[in-house]
Amino acid sequence: MTQTISALTKNSPGVLADMAQAIRKYNVNIRSISAGETEDPTISRLTIGLDGSEDDIQRITEEMADMDVIISMDDLRRKEFVDRELVLVKVAMESACTTQIMQIFEVFRANVVGMGQRSITVEMSGDRERVDGLIKMLAPFGIKSLCRSGMIALKRGDD
Amino acid sequence: MTQTISALTKNSPGVLADMAQAIRKYNVNIRSISAGETEDPTISRLTIGLDGSEDDIQRITEEMADMDVIISMDDLRRKEFVDRELVLVKVAMESACTTQIMQIFEVFRANVVGMGQRSITVEMSGDRERVDGLIKMLAPFGIKSLCRSGMIALKRGDD
Repeated sequence: MTQTISALTKNSPGVLADMAQAIRKYNVNIRSISAGETEDPTISRLTIGLDGSEDDIQRITEEMADMDVIISMDDLRRKEFVDRELVLVKVAMESACTTQIMQIFEVFRANVVGMGQRSITVEMSGDRERVDGLIKMLAPFGIKSLCRSGMIALKRGDD
Repeated sequence: MTQTISALTKNSPGVLADMAQAIRKYNVNIRSISAGETEDPTISRLTIGLDGSEDDIQRITEEMADMDVIISMDDLRRKEFVDRELVLVKVAMESACTTQIMQIFEVFRANVVGMGQRSITVEMSGDRERVDGLIKMLAPFGIKSLCRSGMIALKRGDD
């Protein structure tokens, strides 16, 4: 199973190394990770997508919650959340396929952010399924390069 | 200085721990990190924003380039690149401020992705300055929660 965990952490050197070390002990793969600043520069928010058994992920969550550098953790299994991922895709473009490719961009509301002589680069944000969908549609034309941000998430509701 | 490095890595357990360990030895802070799959599920792309001296960052780059798990590295200092970051912001909303807040969303082309009784959640993607700008404009209304993906980047041009 894939599960997403989200934590507020102190923004100090070594936090990521400690975290990665804690996860490494278990038979769990980090599918995606996103860490960025929050409105408070001393605090970062970390979102991690993990592939592994429910038990292993539960143990990782408990271990992380006990760490000094962790300020708070959100259990995204039990709560409703908004999740989004950003993707940049550079796709090969030959003049014969231009219309078709531009139509895909329109359907997925992907924005063109760069153009080369034989390629075009777009950005799109959406949930995992939407990002997977865009990539699947563009793959036959030849994806030259691709970068996903990993999922980020916020709880729904007012808190 | 802040610098961004980008690497293609093998998608296997422990890669992140190794990488974080390599960075930890230097007096450098990880400002942001993003890792996600590429079109090839065995390969991940990692984008790291580092704060530190040019020399330290240079040494980290060299050390990472030598690691087995690293397939290739892009030096984003010397090459032109497209960089984007995704942010989710939940901002407090009282009826007296609704118009003002909605205008900010319009200016920044931020999309509403969730609403509570006393808050509204938007997503926006853009370069670092744009994301910082949105956060600065919304701060006076009260930011309840915020999540940044960390920067992702692709080289400009056809390669």
